[in-house]
Amino acid sequence: MYKTLQVFFNLNFKRLKTQISNKPSLYTSLSPALLHLYDVSSSIVVIIDVLRATSTIAAALHNGAKSIIPVDSVAECIKLGKQMEVITAGERDGQIAEGLTYGNSPFTFPPEFIKGKTLVLTTTNGTKLLHMALAENAKAIVTGSFPNLSSVCNYLISQKQNVILACAAWKDKVNLEDTLFAGAVINKIKENFSINCDASKMAEILYNEAKDDLYEFMKNKDASHYHRLTSYGLEKDIRYCLTIDIDNVLPIYKEGRLVAK
Amino acid sequence: MYKTLQVFFNLNFKRLKTQISNKPSLYTSLSPALLHLYDVSSSIVVIIDVLRATSTIAAALHNGAKSIIPVDSVAECIKLGKQMEVITAGERDGQIAEGLTYGNSPFTFPPEFIKGKTLVLTTTNGTKLLHMALAENAKAIVTGSFPNLSSVCNYLISQKQNVILACAAWKDKVNLEDTLFAGAVINKIKENFSINCDASKMAEILYNEAKDDLYEFMKNKDASHYHRLTSYGLEKDIRYCLTIDIDNVLPIYKEGRLVAK
Repeated sequence: MYKTLQVFFNLNFKRLKTQISNKPSLYTSLSPALLHLYDVSSSIVVIIDVLRATSTIAAALHNGAKSIIPVDSVAECIKLGKQMEVITAGERDGQIAEGLTYGNSPFTFPPEFIKGKTLVLTTTNGTKLLHMALAENAKAIVTGSFPNLSSVCNYLISQKQNVILACAAWKDKVNLEDTLFAGAVINKIKENFSINCDASKMAEILYNEAKDDLYEFMKNKDASHYHRLTSYGLEKDIRYCLTIDIDNVLPIYKEGRLVAK
Repeated sequence: MYKTLQVFFNLNFKRLKTQISNKPSLYTSLSPALLHLYDVSSSIVVIIDVLRATSTIAAALHNGAKSIIPVDSVAECIKLGKQMEVITAGERDGQIAEGLTYGNSPFTFPPEFIKGKTLVLTTTNGTKLLHMALAENAKAIVTGSFPNLSSVCNYLISQKQNVILACAAWKDKVNLEDTLFAGAVINKIKENFSINCDASKMAEILYNEAKDDLYEFMKNKDASHYHRLTSYGLEKDIRYCLTIDIDNVLPIYKEGRLVAK
């Protein structure tokens, strides 16, 4: 009897706490293959593809790009390049993809080159995820990376809406750097959200372990993407993509393009 | 030119290292929704459902149960109970499911009760995952939990086969306790395997954070399953399920049943 009463009060106390808190929810999807588990249509979705798509997007927009059109194939990128006055960029296996003009390093798009121009960028994991969020009628779609961490956090706090931090991962396999970025966001904004999500808690614990030196952490743990990019000689890119707030802009998706809000 | 050479040697050195190491691979699947990403048919699959299915399986077999038949529905459990001389057990929402005789706490199956008997246990997440591994022709299927951690580790080392640590999660959502168990296994056996898997690295980092007091860690982080089970008054079960090596047996799946190897 006592136990039944205890269970009854525990359950109702929980419900009461939720009602009082009345904060929007925050969830972390560690892979595109898990996105369907979350209520995308009632949420702002943050697309996270730290190495290197969303970092390069932040850099290009911060450096004055007019807009960025993310596409998921080299063929689509070439096609748009022929139809419009744009810069086409994208890599496959660490090399500029055949038929495109530029790679997708954040260093490729300094202000003197990209200002006022439209960039068509082909990425695989990030673009696929963005289109999934679009198909599920996300309330809004923004992109996040360490270079624009604070812009993303300030926006999420200001909107007072449910949030899904959506990691692009690598061919659906969970990766360390996207999870760390989710953890960084949670670390900064958790007081403003109700977080009943183990993936979010795991992400924050990992970020707290890593935050003193994100690059060394990725290196020490021999993260799969650290491994892949260093084998292409791209340590400099990794360091850039792990640097907080150097391109503080908010890329928001509107009518097929990412623009600075 | 120098950079091209450097990239060439880096890539080939990597390949060489892999060839020399010649260790079997180890991957962690954080959710049943990610299992298809891994090569199940060439691997031993460890089913992990810490709270409480695989812990209770270890307890019952350690206490002398003849075998355990895992089924995914209450109806199937009732049906087998009518056809065979077995004990039927399973819970829904923290209560013994209607039509079944026992719950699924590890405390329900002491030696004086379970010795020599067959248990039909209905669980949702763990059983679904086990059937997925079976459908994909896993080389072998065993179940893992903190109470039988060392048995699982010793078996995996002895087999010299590829391994997938498969977390049952909660309705496909990643959970903390199953990830922590994957991390505990990795922590003990990593020298024997080639691990190129960020999820595995994340699991081990989390385990290292938690290992001094797994219960306190789950409580402090307010893990979703900790939350759910304590609201049913099941703290004692959680503590049991987080205790290492108290039921050191290896449950292996053979012809529809889990038996102690």
